Amino acid sequence: MSLLIKNVIFEGKRTDIFVENGKISKIKKSLNLKAKEKIDAKGEKAILPGFVNSHTHSAMILLRGFGEGLSLKDWLEKVIWPLEEKLTEDDVYWGTKLACLEMIKSGITTFNEMYFYPKAQIEATKEMGQRAILGLVLVDFSTKGCDKKTIEKIYTKLKSLLKNCPTIKLSIAPHAIYTVSKENLIWAKNFAKKEKLLIHMHLSETEREVKECKKKHKMGPVEYLEKIGFLGENCVFAHSIWLSEKEIEILAKRKCSLIYNPTSNMKLASGIFPYKKVKEKGINVCLGTDGPASNNSLNFFFEMKIASLLQKISNMDPQILPAREVIGLATKNGAKALKIDSGEIKVGKLADLILIDLNKISLFPKENLISNLVFSANPDCVSDVICNGKILMRDGIIENEKTILNKAKEFKVDFF
Amino acid sequence: MSLLIKNVIFEGKRTDIFVENGKISKIKKSLNLKAKEKIDAKGEKAILPGFVNSHTHSAMILLRGFGEGLSLKDWLEKVIWPLEEKLTEDDVYWGTKLACLEMIKSGITTFNEMYFYPKAQIEATKEMGQRAILGLVLVDFSTKGCDKKTIEKIYTKLKSLLKNCPTIKLSIAPHAIYTVSKENLIWAKNFAKKEKLLIHMHLSETEREVKECKKKHKMGPVEYLEKIGFLGENCVFAHSIWLSEKEIEILAKRKCSLIYNPTSNMKLASGIFPYKKVKEKGINVCLGTDGPASNNSLNFFFEMKIASLLQKISNMDPQILPAREVIGLATKNGAKALKIDSGEIKVGKLADLILIDLNKISLFPKENLISNLVFSANPDCVSDVICNGKILMRDGIIENEKTILNKAKEFKVDFF
Repeated sequence: MSLLIKNVIFEGKRTDIFVENGKISKIKKSLNLKAKEKIDAKGEKAILPGFVNSHTHSAMILLRGFGEGLSLKDWLEKVIWPLEEKLTEDDVYWGTKLACLEMIKSGITTFNEMYFYPKAQIEATKEMGQRAILGLVLVDFSTKGCDKKTIEKIYTKLKSLLKNCPTIKLSIAPHAIYTVSKENLIWAKNFAKKEKLLIHMHLSETEREVKECKKKHKMGPVEYLEKIGFLGENCVFAHSIWLSEKEIEILAKRKCSLIYNPTSNMKLASGIFPYKKVKEKGINVCLGTDGPASNNSLNFFFEMKIASLLQKISNMDPQILPAREVIGLATKNGAKALKIDSGEIKVGKLADLILIDLNKISLFPKENLISNLVFSANPDCVSDVICNGKILMRDGIIENEKTILNKAKEFKVDFF
Repeated sequence: MSLLIKNVIFEGKRTDIFVENGKISKIKKSLNLKAKEKIDAKGEKAILPGFVNSHTHSAMILLRGFGEGLSLKDWLEKVIWPLEEKLTEDDVYWGTKLACLEMIKSGITTFNEMYFYPKAQIEATKEMGQRAILGLVLVDFSTKGCDKKTIEKIYTKLKSLLKNCPTIKLSIAPHAIYTVSKENLIWAKNFAKKEKLLIHMHLSETEREVKECKKKHKMGPVEYLEKIGFLGENCVFAHSIWLSEKEIEILAKRKCSLIYNPTSNMKLASGIFPYKKVKEKGINVCLGTDGPASNNSLNFFFEMKIASLLQKISNMDPQILPAREVIGLATKNGAKALKIDSGEIKVGKLADLILIDLNKISLFPKENLISNLVFSANPDCVSDVICNGKILMRDGIIENEKTILNKAKEFKVDFF
């Protein structure tokens, strides 16, 4: 399997890129090599690493727009949870496909997922061709097979489904400290260690979570996790808003990665990610959309822009988190957190790449492409998406898009 | 001139809409009338009032991405102002056209403009067909004809250019209290009264503006404007962030309209518009992008989403400024501020209308269109744009788009 990308703009210059076996093998002007697939950018498209959506619940796209305007508690208890109870494995399969479609169109080549029905998610993601870390959700009380006994039982079977699949990995995803007991957290930690898995978890999303933790454990959530020996380089924590100085130091020492989810945090009024403090301590920060029921989109251009804007206004500093740094959060920092060798355009890196159509009006004038990508681009600027060397979208066209959209139209019937 | 829109979704139901002489004349199921133009939405497009961008400096699209990452002071003094000095009348003509293009694609049918070279702006806007209030900028020190003598001299000539043009009006646009003297403000007030014009002005955008005003005048900017008899129903103020309770009461009493510009306010770290307090006093609030050099986009979907998100997080209340209210800011409140009889779909209202393609993935599932429009839609959801009964975009196609984009590619040469 080989792919030759001709006449693409890379760091301001026109070049060719050759991809073999899912990896970038040559970056050079005027490459004349035979390749199974070819894309000619004609000097009118720029190339970027594909975006890494580091925290989402993709199949929740089926619940987008439901319970709008309710308080967080009512939204969850009266709308989202009852609807999730009704979701079938087939719903999650189609929901995942629909979300993959929207993510591909937004230039997302990798996503870090946390949802139930892993078999359906594996199947859907395989078919769409994106790279994903699919989290096996762990909660104390589950009707959806999210308990440790079920996970232990299905794990080998799921792993066998992923044999010969270079793009999908599993992680263990304890939901949060308030839904998973100490005993189960320790089990998850050991299971991840034994199987060499990432741990993907919500952490300190709301002030309430921290208050309740302090009441119960006489310490903050991070201190609690440190005390039970949970923290390590394989931990990727979503939200991580309500952190004390001491907790930030612990997270830095344990080399955990944190996921900034600005839209969801604003929409649910959860709080503001302490980017400045976290960055000062050298913690790896990546970017996520959270689920499309609380975003309500999977548009990574919106997420990049709002990521920067929220830090500027909350720090009253127009210079914090500039465009190039945002692109870093959206690409290489995500890849680092997820232990994937992508996120940069270099020989030897995985060929997870997107092409940007420089003729789109939102990219005019061409003074500063990086600034335009973060502050003015829309998903329609993404023309081609390549994951693991395979073309997932060519000139805006994704195979089977119509079939997936038509299937999506039927969901309403299933729900009510 | 007549237009028949068939099978469009309006408030959840399929209907037909007949437009005559720039106004909505009939809304009814199965209208069988002869019309010069016809659009068949086939039940797959929804209709909305066109968006009203209540504060922008559209031609600044030419300066998008310049000086990224500088502090506000350096950005203005070292990059924007020197570049603006170099802008020619022809640049502003093409810049306005380029901005109109991006605005039409985003569903904006009316914009409230503040920039120089009004003749070029009139010409460009006329050609693009959008409705606009073009502000004649007034500053004390001007090299661009933004002084009262020039305005008095050119006003009659500009008015004659607008004879028989139902879509463009002029306003008087004193830049701000710190760039326009008391004497000139009073002149502007009287000129607006005599000519029945709107007054479009920046107000209390930064804390510094308020501090300096208090130092100089021993009172806040609004109190100062009240004292000199400036305030009235024809005043439309951009930003209006740093307002005291007393000042909010004055603005309510004088029936001024305020323009919320969330992206620009966040990007420049100016502050947060006090939406809750302003709304409590019954002040009319509308929405603006500000200029595309400080946004850096004219994407009204982004602006609507961020408008809601910023209020939710700053008030720590997920229920404030819900989707339907945001749509109101973006349509009827803008029309009210600008004294235009549009912003609602009713018989007799101006036919400034947009069609939304319900098959776009960002609008799935169809549970809640209003929520989806604010929180997940992108400009590519807008398929057709109608202003004053005239089709400006049909099925995503705008006449002369290529010509304008090609011209835009040349700008770099002119600048440096």
